[in-house]
This record gives sequence, structure tokens and C-alpha cells, in this order.
Amino acid sequence: MSLERIFNAESVAIIEVVKDEAHQGYKVLESLVEGKFEGRIYPVSRGEKSILGLRCYNSVRDIPENIDLVLVTTPPGSLKNLLPELGKKGAAGAIVLTGGFGELGEEGKKFEEEIVNLARKNGIRIIGPNTPGMISIEKGINLVGLNNIPEGDLAILTQSGNIALNLITEANLKSQTGFKYSVGVGNEADIKFHEYLEYFTEDPDTSIILMYVEGLRDGRQFLQQASRTSQIKPIVLYKSGKSAKGSKSAGSHTGALAGISEVSQSAFRRAGIIEVDHPGEMFPVAETLSLLPRLKDNTIAILADGGGHATIAADYLTNLGIRLPELENKTREKLAAILPHNASLANPIDVAGGADRNPAIFADCAEILLEDINIHGLMIVGLFGGYGIRFAEKLSFIEEDAAHRLGKLMESTSKPILLHSLYDHAKPHSLELLRYYHIPVYDSLEIACKCVEALSVYSSYRRDYDKEGNFKINWGEKAIPEVQDIIDNALAEGRKVLLEHEAKEIFRLQGATVSQEYLAASEDEAVEFAEKLGYDAALKIVSPDIIHKTDAGGVMLGLKDEEAVREAFKTIMDSCTECNPGADIRGCLVSQMAGKGIETIVGMKTDDQFGPTVMFGLGGIMVSVMKDVSFQVVPVSEYWAKYMINEIKSSVIFDGFRGRPPSDKEAIVKLIQKVSGVAQAYPLINEIDLNPVLVHSEGLTIVDARIILK
Amino acid sequence: MSLERIFNAESVAIIEVVKDEAHQGYKVLESLVEGKFEGRIYPVSRGEKSILGLRCYNSVRDIPENIDLVLVTTPPGSLKNLLPELGKKGAAGAIVLTGGFGELGEEGKKFEEEIVNLARKNGIRIIGPNTPGMISIEKGINLVGLNNIPEGDLAILTQSGNIALNLITEANLKSQTGFKYSVGVGNEADIKFHEYLEYFTEDPDTSIILMYVEGLRDGRQFLQQASRTSQIKPIVLYKSGKSAKGSKSAGSHTGALAGISEVSQSAFRRAGIIEVDHPGEMFPVAETLSLLPRLKDNTIAILADGGGHATIAADYLTNLGIRLPELENKTREKLAAILPHNASLANPIDVAGGADRNPAIFADCAEILLEDINIHGLMIVGLFGGYGIRFAEKLSFIEEDAAHRLGKLMESTSKPILLHSLYDHAKPHSLELLRYYHIPVYDSLEIACKCVEALSVYSSYRRDYDKEGNFKINWGEKAIPEVQDIIDNALAEGRKVLLEHEAKEIFRLQGATVSQEYLAASEDEAVEFAEKLGYDAALKIVSPDIIHKTDAGGVMLGLKDEEAVREAFKTIMDSCTECNPGADIRGCLVSQMAGKGIETIVGMKTDDQFGPTVMFGLGGIMVSVMKDVSFQVVPVSEYWAKYMINEIKSSVIFDGFRGRPPSDKEAIVKLIQKVSGVAQAYPLINEIDLNPVLVHSEGLTIVDARIILK
Repeated sequence: MSLERIFNAESVAIIEVVKDEAHQGYKVLESLVEGKFEGRIYPVSRGEKSILGLRCYNSVRDIPENIDLVLVTTPPGSLKNLLPELGKKGAAGAIVLTGGFGELGEEGKKFEEEIVNLARKNGIRIIGPNTPGMISIEKGINLVGLNNIPEGDLAILTQSGNIALNLITEANLKSQTGFKYSVGVGNEADIKFHEYLEYFTEDPDTSIILMYVEGLRDGRQFLQQASRTSQIKPIVLYKSGKSAKGSKSAGSHTGALAGISEVSQSAFRRAGIIEVDHPGEMFPVAETLSLLPRLKDNTIAILADGGGHATIAADYLTNLGIRLPELENKTREKLAAILPHNASLANPIDVAGGADRNPAIFADCAEILLEDINIHGLMIVGLFGGYGIRFAEKLSFIEEDAAHRLGKLMESTSKPILLHSLYDHAKPHSLELLRYYHIPVYDSLEIACKCVEALSVYSSYRRDYDKEGNFKINWGEKAIPEVQDIIDNALAEGRKVLLEHEAKEIFRLQGATVSQEYLAASEDEAVEFAEKLGYDAALKIVSPDIIHKTDAGGVMLGLKDEEAVREAFKTIMDSCTECNPGADIRGCLVSQMAGKGIETIVGMKTDDQFGPTVMFGLGGIMVSVMKDVSFQVVPVSEYWAKYMINEIKSSVIFDGFRGRPPSDKEAIVKLIQKVSGVAQAYPLINEIDLNPVLVHSEGLTIVDARIILK
Repeated sequence: MSLERIFNAESVAIIEVVKDEAHQGYKVLESLVEGKFEGRIYPVSRGEKSILGLRCYNSVRDIPENIDLVLVTTPPGSLKNLLPELGKKGAAGAIVLTGGFGELGEEGKKFEEEIVNLARKNGIRIIGPNTPGMISIEKGINLVGLNNIPEGDLAILTQSGNIALNLITEANLKSQTGFKYSVGVGNEADIKFHEYLEYFTEDPDTSIILMYVEGLRDGRQFLQQASRTSQIKPIVLYKSGKSAKGSKSAGSHTGALAGISEVSQSAFRRAGIIEVDHPGEMFPVAETLSLLPRLKDNTIAILADGGGHATIAADYLTNLGIRLPELENKTREKLAAILPHNASLANPIDVAGGADRNPAIFADCAEILLEDINIHGLMIVGLFGGYGIRFAEKLSFIEEDAAHRLGKLMESTSKPILLHSLYDHAKPHSLELLRYYHIPVYDSLEIACKCVEALSVYSSYRRDYDKEGNFKINWGEKAIPEVQDIIDNALAEGRKVLLEHEAKEIFRLQGATVSQEYLAASEDEAVEFAEKLGYDAALKIVSPDIIHKTDAGGVMLGLKDEEAVREAFKTIMDSCTECNPGADIRGCLVSQMAGKGIETIVGMKTDDQFGPTVMFGLGGIMVSVMKDVSFQVVPVSEYWAKYMINEIKSSVIFDGFRGRPPSDKEAIVKLIQKVSGVAQAYPLINEIDLNPVLVHSEGLTIVDARIILK
């Protein structure tokens, strides 16, 4: 694998180094010299003979041996000459720090492409450009020039250097965990997110991957890799660039497009990625997932030394879908025996001052609680760690003993324990001990609760994993010649928009249940077809020139007899001709009126980052105003089609609402999968809009359909 | 004012003190002795002659002079004897620490009431019980036993001692701001939230009030006071107990009911309270509001040294409704002259490495940005404060100079400046300088953005304040004898539920536009009335025994002629008699079918904490499933009635949706106010449900109405 040599480089060249302590090249050289890097270092400098005791080289050509990895600090233009020289030295990778490429518009993009091609020709992979650099800590390859990076098993993959700095700072201040890699992907011009991800996935010493993403260059490949990765180790991701302003700013940052957040959210979830809501949650969530055993059954107990924190934690966890089960009677009895009379023995458990003189009571309670068959994890909230500070110095020894007991309790029960402490800032020894036992400690109650959520989400993901839910598109799968003919025919006519009956015909040919309809060219035909189908009838104009049929007076509904059909046909023709003189009118589509049903929309659009994506929601204002809509990228398996239906808030309506009978959810599941299948079969389709689709208690009716080609 | 003597006590007794450094009485005594309290201290102790050099008293009786304030650490039962003794000593207040009162159920509540009455008889006000204590820092009255409380102008009002500890810790670690008061309200048995609030409002040295609330004993009085307070100084509030579990835990904590969060949210907003989403936002938001000038026009510029933070900040602020306006051309030109070529000159502004060797560029840019007429505030995000650490030591002096310049810039422009820094943890001098100039510094980007939001919300509140929007209920205002008769008559018949025509009659009598309807006792009458009103007609059963009219077969709609009305009357009678034999049937309500319109619900319910509360939303699943509903406590002014309509997400539907004409919003405003007026006029009404109300392009129709009495 080509990244192997980059992350394990034994010789590094820096082009170039200036004798100035604020210069990036100089800082990196300093890190390499002072750090534990054991390979050869070749500084290239035009003016200097030696810097920091190392011989400098005038140019790459002067370097006496082959090079694994190069850090390039010179302007973009210099790469044209550099890359061939580096190729001759057998370089595997070049880290290009400078900006001035794809993030600066069309011309920059062209130049970026040119550089990537040149690199490929010379056998070199590029990290960046526009990257803060890369760190492979175990090997001492620190090409960012940051000091004091704690070593551990986390890997950072980021589109912003400052976010990496953020994570490293947090690890230093608030944990005993550290990093193995940190890579700034920059513009992703050559090496993409998914390639790094694959490398970290295969590295047995990396336990978690932390990602900061603004936009993905190859979203589909990323999802496929992420889905494989999540089977083995968690990915914790924060995505920004969700607002128009943010996306604009992201654009100027990395030249990548920031995608619509709903689509990426659902795709990330399906790929098993833990997407956090705030950047401040990234490190704690990753630490929790790295340290703690799985949380079974989504249940936890809260143990507090004050009502306030207990109440807030209960609010948060309940909102996040974590259950706080009732305790067994024997658990309550045991707790009652050691706690004050005004303690709360429900879950949350409040020791109500019972710890003020004896903080070991936390360990006593924890031992009792984790024996309860309903309780699969424990969150302790409040002052623990601060009793020695707040009440009496000697209590700190009791806290330390309690910490040892809690640590061993987690080991013996394999039930996760987390701690929130108001006294983390004071760095008491008891909290250091908890961390030694891999019990994470947080000073923010909100973040502690989010960590519990992540633990629960990742545990459920691994348990319920749907192996059909992969992200591989088999373009052209199950394509049918007749459908291809309809598409080709439209394109031959210069049409991007298929006519209603063509769109419906495609679904009929693909095996969807589409009610019979006929294209009537004359009044007489319209009557003939209406009689054949049975009344009430509906007539709709068919014309490539009339897209908004209702607005053009091209739709007449509820026609009860021959007379009404004749009248309607004439009215439609008159009105459409008047509205759009010279329009290519092919006739009227005759159908039987659909029975009552719930109005839904099933659609497909082509997402910039992820490609074809299916959409589902209720009709009317539920989609357009309430945004109560669900997305899944193609292909959509049965599991995820069901997920889409249940995901929208308004889905309860399908279970029978206000005395109506339940709707045929199974039929929607099939239609969603059919839309996904059509999108996969015909790469030329850009957009599908089945709207409305009436869902009955048995079956459904696609009332109107539209397909737009690329 | 009765709290005056409590917060300025010149003599304090502690009942009682035990020689044990972890004992609450001992810790408080220590704080008083070691702190700056200048008054007299009287420890009461049964065993000891003296503690910490102070003479101990055997009992209250032995204290040689009158006492202002008493701290009671003894069990609840002791108060029965204590209070009369304290009364004799002229005590103004007693702080009761122990629990065991209202939070423990009915018996506890009765005992609590008894104690409060006894205290009143003896002229004593009670803080608590079940409180962590009270601190009046300027006077050195520290009755919590917490040390190192920074002095300043914030006041804490809390239902949890740990939350106060949280706030104090944060102030110590991350600001130069401090506190004047901290009060644990405990069970609010005697002194209520609003009384403390009034005291802090009138205290000229208090700038902000910070509140942690689980539930309010007297919500209505609180809203009235809060509304007055917000005119003068901000209230920053966090409310917990929102989930069922949280509310249960809150119940065991303070014995107060946790209210429905939607109702309290809207009431708090109307009272000008800044309600924060997370407890971690309380202190930063309060600090921001206390230090910074107002933010005009909701606009701000973001200045960053890296795309990541700029993108995230832009996302957050945009979502929070803050505008990031385009810069003037001359601003862009001035920035371009000093920034690198790849810098982003749109808002957010990214200096793109331009600060790496010269962090003073932040001050340069800030000076340019705050001259821009579109920009009314500035948020700087990234590494500022850390350039001396990250790049070269000498840069820290440049940062300090920049800090001085930024500080003076805020003074001269009166435009707020906030800073986010990754290096706050390292406590660099430059950040200390910024704080000296009242520029707040945050290490969390999310929280910095929430602070900007609070600044904007409070500024708008003061600007747009609706003086009609107070919370005073004038029970019985505009009551009419005829309506009172209807209510009295129903109660006399033993009915809590008014019949549909009675409910509608009430609204008609109060001046609402209610379409004419008649109660027909016979088939002939039904026909007579239908002819009078015009077809299509509707018939609905009228019976105190039949609440669910449709289920009983008591509703027939769209009756087109005499025959249909006769048929319907018979069918309804048969079906209702069969469904409910022996029911007291008064006849059928005859009305003309309403025209098309948008289905809405206007209702009123009596909230546990705030009393009568009006509700508005769209009919169907929008209220019951989507929870797209708006609440306002009575009385609802025109301003807030309009606010309710615009607040629901689905309100765009009234502006004409899918080609429909706009609806008569003015008619809804009037109906909302009418419901509010009816609730205020008749205290015996517990619930009103006008459902559905069809809103037409002109006017509306109350199709069904229900009123439930207390």
C-alpha cells in the first residue's frame, strides 16, 4: 500500500529551510532534530551551509541518497521543477503546505490537476496542497512543528490544522489518551479522505479515527470505506460548512464543496460514523469510545451528590434516547441501608449529602448499582475529586481509595463508568487515578451525556449492522432495453424531461405497480379509455412543452361520465393551446381517479458529493415547509427503506391516525427500493419525482411522475 | 424591604456548630471568621465553650443581643422551638439548610406550611429549607462555607448548590468578573424567586442575575417581576427538569413542580429572560452581557486565522440568526493591502497565515473592520494569545500590544468584541489584558457564538419591548352577567363541560364573530333553521352525556336539502340513543356548512406554574404529531398574538400556499386575544378548545368549541 512508506518514512527532506524560528521549515526541522525521529533528515536551503547542526543541501539533486518523504514549503509554482527531481530520488510522498490551488477558482483547479498528473508520472503521492502537514508520532515524523503531542492510539484526519491543534490541546489537558497520526488532508488534490481512512483502518495500533470535514472530494468512495472501517473501529466526525456562509468560508479554505447536511447526516449514520454536533465533543467522544467497554441495552444509572446535576443529566440522557431504568427492589434496599433518609433511591440516585464526610460512598453505591440486572452502565456526576478541597483535606485519601475501587469495578463488571466532576480543573490525584483505570472524566455535564449517547449509538450500530446497507453503486444493474429506448428517444428529441406517461411506463417496466393509464389523442379515444378503466376518470395534458400542467389548465379530475370526459378533453385542449400556443401537444393521459390515501412524495436527486440519493416524505407542507423528510443515498436496502419511513416525524400517520386504517408501509418500502433501483440502472437519470404518491390501506397510486435526465 | 436586613446582616447566629472541620456549621463559622465579615458572630453549640476563638452559646436565649440572621443546621423538627426564640431576638431571617420538608410528599408539605406560618408570626423570613445557604459577598456574609469567591456585580439565584459552585469555579478560572450575591432558594417555602429577584433588581450594584430553575412555586409573580427586571438588567436562566425523568429528579430535589418546557420557554422569552440551552453557557453569557456594549442591528464580522474555525463560527452564527454582512468595497481594499494573497476577504475574514509572524495584524484588521458601516461587532477566532507559544516567543509582546489596541478600539467604537482562543488554557498575558479591557475570552467556539446570540437577543428585546406584554391577570375583567349565568347554570347541573352551543354563545357574547347556529329540539325545527340559515347544512348532537360527538354518530355534514336534514336528524337521534341509552339529549345544533379554510386550533389550558395559557397551531397532525404549536400565558397582547402566529413553523401557509389566497391573520389575532380575554374574565374556566377553527381569506369559522370548568 502506497501510504505505508509515507507514514513510515526513514528519510525526510525539507524544501526549504530558512534560519528564522517562526519559519515553518525551520520549526519542522527543529521538531525532527529534537524529537525521536531516527531516520535521515535533509534540509534544503539556498543560503545556509548548516542549520541546527545539520548539513544543508542547495537542491534536491545534491542529496546523496533516495528520499521517502518531502515537505514542501515553497510556492506552488516551484512544484513543476521539483516533482521530476523528487521522482528521480524515488520519493513516495510530498506534503505541500502552500495554498494557491483549487481553493482559488478555476485557474487554480487546472493548475492543481496539472501538478497531480506530474506527481503521478513521477510515482509521488501528494498530501495537500494547502495542508498544515502530517504527523506520524510513533516514528517521530512530526512535519507540523507542534510540540508536546501525547502519544496514543487515536488518528486525526482533518481539513483544518487549527482543529487538530484543538484536539491535541484537549488530550494534553484533560486525558491520558494520545495520538498515533494527524493528517491535514488540505485540498485532497491527490490522496483522498478514504485512502487515509483505509490506511488507519488497517493499522492495528489505531483504535479510533477523528475527522473534521468541510466537504468531501469523493463522497461515495468515502462512504464505502467508512462503512468497512466502522465494522472494525469507530469514526468520530464533525462536519462544518452546513450554512450558506459556512459553506462559502469552507470553499475558500479547501476548495471542496460543502454538501447539504441532511444527506450527509443520513449517509454518515448508515456508514456507522459517529457524527458529533459540536467540535468540542470530538475528543471526549473519541476518548470514551476508545476506553470504555460497550454499553448494553442502552441503559444507565446516574449517581449524584446534588439534585441539580442529577436533574440536568436525566434531562439530557432522556432526550438523547438513553433509558434510566427503575432499580430492582433489592438494589433500593441496599442503597437505603447506607444513604441518608432524604436521599433519592430512584434513578437518578442522589446521595443527598451522604458523601460530605465520606466520598467512598460513591464506590459503595456503584458496587450496588452495577449488580442490578437493569443497569448496564454508570455515570457519576457532581463533586467527586473535590471532597478533599471542598470539605476536609483528609477526604482526598478516601476519594483515592474510592477511585481504585471504581476502576477495579469497571474491570470486573465490564460495564462502562463515566465521571463528571466540578473539580477536574484542580487536577486532584483521585481523578488521575480514575483515568489510569480508563474511566474518562469530564467537566461538562452536557459532554459527558453526549459521550454516553455515542457509546450507545456505536454499540447499537455494531449489533444491528445491516450488511445490505453498503454504498456500492452497480451502474446499469437490472437495466432493461425498453426503458433505455424511452430515455434515448427523449434525448434524441432534445428533451431532458420525460413526459408523465413515459416516466410511469419506466416504473411499470421495472416492475412497480403502476395503475393502467392510456394516452388519448382524441376526444373519442379519451371516452373509450375512460369506459375501459371505469369512472371517475381523470384527464391530464401530455406535452413536452407544458411542465406545470395544473397552471396551464391541463388537469381535470373526478369526471363522472362520457359527457364530462368529452367536455374536459375540449377544455384542456383549448386552455393549453391558449396558454402555450404552438405547444407540441400529444394528447391527454386518461386514468381512473385514485382512491383516498395519504399523500407522500418519493424522489431521487443527484447529490454533489454522494451521487444519487432517494428522498421520502409526506406531501403538502410537510416536506416543503416542515422539512420532515428522509434521505438515503442509493442503493437503498429494505432495512434502510424502512428506516426512512420511520425516520420522519410524521410517520405515525401511517399507523392509522384519527380513526383511519393503517397504511400499506410495505408498498412504500418497495417503491423506495424501486426508485433506488431505477437510479442505479440508468446513470443518465438525474432526478425522479413521484409526487404525489397516494398510499392506501392496501397498495399505493403514483398519481404523477417526472424524470429529468442529465 | 424585608430582605434588606438579611443581605446586610450585622449579626449572625449559627445553630449549631460542631467541632469537626467537615461540619457545615463549622465551615461557615470558619468562613465568617477568616473572611471580611465585620458584624457579630454567635455560634450556638451544646458541648463547646468556644470554637475558633469565639465564645459559644448554649442556646439562642443566651445570646446577649438581638440577631439579624440565623443559619440553622439542625433537623427540621428543631424549628418549632427555635422560631419563637428567634422571634424574641428580633431575627429578620433564618436560613434552613436541612431537607425533609415539601420534597418528601404530602406530610412534609404540611409540616413546611406549619413552619412558614410560625416564622411569619414571629416576623422571620425563611430562606430554604433544603438550601445550600446564602452569600452576600460585599458584606462578607458567607453562609455556604465556600472560599475564594471572586467579588463582582453578578447575582446567583439557584435551586442547586452545585450549580452555584459551578458558576463560581468558572468565574475564578476564566474571567475577571465576580459575584455580589449567591442564594440557594431551596424549596421556596417562604421567600420566593420573585422576591429575591426584586431585591437584586433594586440593588444598583448588581448588573446581571444568573438563575438555575427546576420549577417555580409562583410562576405568575415571577414573570411579572422578571418582566420588570429585564427592562433594567438582564436575567440569564437555565431551566432543567424538562424530561419526565429530570422532572422526577427535580421533584425529589426541591419539591417544586417542573413545568412543560414549551410554555415556560415562551413565557421566559416574553419576560425578556435570556434562557440558555446548556448550564455551561450561563456564566459566559452573563459575563458577555455584563461587559460588552449592545450589539446593533444583529450584525457581526468574524476574523480568523484558519478556515476551520471561521467555517464553524459562520455555521453557528448563521443558525442563531446573526447576520454576517458583506464588507464595503473600501474595507476589502484596505484588508487586501495588508493580508496575503490567499486570504479570504469575505465575511468571515481569514488572514490565511498572515498572523504567523505578526499577530498584530488582528488589531490592524479589527480597526479596518469596525470602521465598516455594515459591521456592528467583531468575533476573533483561532490562536490569538498563542502566537508566542506556537511560533516564536517574541511574538507574545506583539500580541500584548495588539490586545491593548483591541481594548481601546472597543472603548472608542462602542462595538462589542469577543475572542475565541485555543490558548486560553495557557493563560497568556495578552488574554489577561483583553479581559482587563472587558473583552471576554472563550475557549469554546460554540459558547462564544451563543454569547453573540444572547447579546443580540437582549439588545433586540430592549429595543422592541412591548409594554402591553405584561403578565398581570385582572381576574373578572370584562366579565358579562349572561356568560356568568351560562357557567353557573352548568355548575348547578353538575356539569364541568359546557355544551358546544353554550361555549359558542360565550364567545358570541364576548364579541367574537361566531356564525349563527340554532338548537333544534325536533325534526321540524331542524328544517326550519336550516332553511333560515341556507344550505348546505350541518347537524350536531347536543347532549351533556355525549362528549365525542362523531364517535356516537352525532354529526352529519353537507346536508343539501330539507329531505337530507330530516333524514339526518332521525339518524343522529337513533344512533345517539342506541350508543348511549338514557342520555340527556337536548336536540341538534343546526348550522350552515363553513366555506373552505385552513384548519387551526385555538385553545387555552391552565398551566401548573403560570396559570391560564393560550395555545395556537394548525389542525390535524401539525399539533398532535409535529408539535408545531405556540403558547403564550394570558393576557396575550396584539403584539404577542401576532408573534404566536409567526412563531409556528407552518405559518407560511397563511401567506398563500400552493396558489391559495392568503388567510385572514388579523382574524386569528383577534380570536387569540378573545380567548385570552375569556380566560381572564372567568376564573372558573379551566380549559378552552376551539377546534377546528377554519381560517378563510376573510374571517374565520369556529366549527367546534368546548369549554371545561374548574
